[in-house]
Amino acid sequence: MAKRLRLQYEDKNATITPMSTLSSQPYKGTRDYYPADKRVQNYIFANWKRVARSWGYEEYGTPLLEPLEVYAAKSGQELASEQTYTFMDRGDRTVAIRPEMTPSVSRMVAARRQEMAYPARLFSVANFMRYERPQRGREREFWQLNVDIFGVEGALPEAEIIAMGAQFLKQFGATDDMFIIKINNRQVINYMMAQYLGLDAVQAQLMIKLFDRKNKIAPEDFRDQAIDIFGQQAAPAGLKRISAILAAKSMGELPEDIRESAAVKEIQQLFTLLERSGVKNAIFDITLMRGLDYYTGTVFEFFDTNKENSRSLYGGGRYDGLVGLFGAEPISAVGMAPGLTMTELFLETHNLVPKLPSTTDVYVVVLGDTLKEATKFAANLREEGVNVELDITARKLDKQLKTAVKKDIPFIVFVGEDEIKTEIYSFKDTTSSEEQKLSFERIVSSVKDRRRSHLDDPDDLFA
Amino acid sequence: MAKRLRLQYEDKNATITPMSTLSSQPYKGTRDYYPADKRVQNYIFANWKRVARSWGYEEYGTPLLEPLEVYAAKSGQELASEQTYTFMDRGDRTVAIRPEMTPSVSRMVAARRQEMAYPARLFSVANFMRYERPQRGREREFWQLNVDIFGVEGALPEAEIIAMGAQFLKQFGATDDMFIIKINNRQVINYMMAQYLGLDAVQAQLMIKLFDRKNKIAPEDFRDQAIDIFGQQAAPAGLKRISAILAAKSMGELPEDIRESAAVKEIQQLFTLLERSGVKNAIFDITLMRGLDYYTGTVFEFFDTNKENSRSLYGGGRYDGLVGLFGAEPISAVGMAPGLTMTELFLETHNLVPKLPSTTDVYVVVLGDTLKEATKFAANLREEGVNVELDITARKLDKQLKTAVKKDIPFIVFVGEDEIKTEIYSFKDTTSSEEQKLSFERIVSSVKDRRRSHLDDPDDLFA
Repeated sequence: MAKRLRLQYEDKNATITPMSTLSSQPYKGTRDYYPADKRVQNYIFANWKRVARSWGYEEYGTPLLEPLEVYAAKSGQELASEQTYTFMDRGDRTVAIRPEMTPSVSRMVAARRQEMAYPARLFSVANFMRYERPQRGREREFWQLNVDIFGVEGALPEAEIIAMGAQFLKQFGATDDMFIIKINNRQVINYMMAQYLGLDAVQAQLMIKLFDRKNKIAPEDFRDQAIDIFGQQAAPAGLKRISAILAAKSMGELPEDIRESAAVKEIQQLFTLLERSGVKNAIFDITLMRGLDYYTGTVFEFFDTNKENSRSLYGGGRYDGLVGLFGAEPISAVGMAPGLTMTELFLETHNLVPKLPSTTDVYVVVLGDTLKEATKFAANLREEGVNVELDITARKLDKQLKTAVKKDIPFIVFVGEDEIKTEIYSFKDTTSSEEQKLSFERIVSSVKDRRRSHLDDPDDLFA
Repeated sequence: MAKRLRLQYEDKNATITPMSTLSSQPYKGTRDYYPADKRVQNYIFANWKRVARSWGYEEYGTPLLEPLEVYAAKSGQELASEQTYTFMDRGDRTVAIRPEMTPSVSRMVAARRQEMAYPARLFSVANFMRYERPQRGREREFWQLNVDIFGVEGALPEAEIIAMGAQFLKQFGATDDMFIIKINNRQVINYMMAQYLGLDAVQAQLMIKLFDRKNKIAPEDFRDQAIDIFGQQAAPAGLKRISAILAAKSMGELPEDIRESAAVKEIQQLFTLLERSGVKNAIFDITLMRGLDYYTGTVFEFFDTNKENSRSLYGGGRYDGLVGLFGAEPISAVGMAPGLTMTELFLETHNLVPKLPSTTDVYVVVLGDTLKEATKFAANLREEGVNVELDITARKLDKQLKTAVKKDIPFIVFVGEDEIKTEIYSFKDTTSSEEQKLSFERIVSSVKDRRRSHLDDPDDLFA
């Protein structure tokens, strides 16, 4: 009924031939999350969600696949043509596994443009795929938080999103000296390229890409490529003007005709708002370009101040034109997308990853022929909200203990014939190795006390 | 650098041509989850996670893509060849978007076969894709919980997984009369096909598929197709034997040579354990086949007793051979996978979906020129753990109110010049429309009281 994928007809490598032994490794550039890894991921997700919700952002979800055109239109040629996982489905639609969220959330807003309540404050935590060379901080499948606000013009939503971006890091224990926020504006970039440097649209596009690569290439290469873009005749004056820009350490030091542009005034207003909301580590950086084509105003990026981790942590900006692309009346939009991998690297670099034990509170070790009673005991603990793993293997005591310790489970309770008779149980703390004799009620309260004292918020582990 | 996807060279439909207007609709067979829909999804996810954790299951994650061979080997020809989203990546690997989790989690266990602690109790909540005709209860992108236990033989892990399966439904408020659990065993099926019906391997495979379709086709069609499988000569005796099986309403009524098989004894043991753990609505059903090829022992499915929703809710079984396929020593395994869509339909059918307001507690309405002070007020509330959306639009009062109500936010706080002076704020309950004058501290405690009273567990909304 369903047509077979065209590929399978055309390439014999693609036909299905079951092999006798399959690799146990995950697909290149992706990760398996074993429970200990997943706890770190959940810790980050839970903190992101808590902060986003505390600012009144509501969660949404979008499909894994979108038509390729959605990205081709505005995300930029490199992302759409070279980095997407694109294929034709069995109904001949060319689709891509989402490489980012902004086009999808814009599509969703466009579909209910009239019905939605504004400002719409939305967030999601989702997985994405890009076909890139796997390297430190970059995986082919990656996870991102996306926070977006629709329907408010001016600097207020930008200040809110950036302040939230800082709070995401502080929520994990980061201090102001650990990160810096670089801010620029696409209008300033356009003004600089057209009015100040006198470039046409094609030249401007090339120059933006060159600025974007500036920190990754040698100064001579930057110079040579800039000359190519200007052309021999215009190059001397052009290079001088670029030097003037690069020498400016603040907005006040910019060449006067840029400094007095309307777009720079907008940035100044944004800085006033950021200061008011306690964001101290934001700076203006006219060389910050940000790769995606859809930005129309403010752009910003968060950087780790530790040189070992020099890549951008995450960024965002204003993209007023994207909703309009889906046949709806345009609406202003500002968004940001912190990624899991760079956040994890940041936390590791600054030693901010807490010790996260198992989500299981108690491991019940079964002594002798008491499984039936131990099953009942475990069920009773669960009724009280305790997370209980029951050993159902009838193994020797030491093997059961080893399992509990290997899983980082905080407590062990022993259930044998004596315990069943007396209703007093041996209760062992696996961290301190302390052992007590406790009643059922005391076991429940000990577990709950630990949860309260151990976690800022129990949601941490329960995302 | 990266090779362009072959498809793009071969088919001109596949080249990237940005269109002037893009569709705002999601990809066929998939859904956008707006905040109100996402709350229902989160409610189900949170309950699943809470139950799984209470039994000591730990969360894990796997990649979105796997090599196609992983499914071709054991999931069954239909799933691998016809239903997967399969394509060749830019490195010429033939990959599939995961259509199910069991092969991935088996691969993960195989990769750390020696290091892991057993029994390994694992769960995940993830999205999957299958290319199927979208219909009620079936979407191309769908979400599933997977719970699996590795390393324990015998009926105990099967009883545990099935008891948990019942608890998932009860957690949502379901009662025993709303669902039924049908149980069978692949060994019984094999015994029945080979010994009792005298079929060879090819015939048995066809007969299993026919039993699987039994409730979807007319009795005459079932008969005719059964005759085709037996062949004219063997058909009369074969049909008689099938009738004897179908007439049996319990294990005790089965034809004697099946009833006395070792596999049936195993099932009897499972029923004893289920009864002991309070599962009352499990029945033996020798016609239950379950489609996937990798099952080796017990198979089971949960059904809604409401006839409007007659399809299987979810199921699972024992699959002892799968880990061994990835080059590791085999290990016994039992799993189950409740799906989001069928669970939602079940809850709707039985009127069990609770009213879920916004995760935002308070909407701050800004009166006059007080945004600066209102911003501070909102920040203070957030410090106390309150989720606050601040209106930054400077719109008229009625427009601000309308936004709060449209978003289902429980409370509105008004901040104007009087409120700033007196530090007493108008606090409105949007459900009852009651309005009170409250201090900052009373606002915080009112919000927290509501959360506590409204939710069994605050995690419900914070998955």
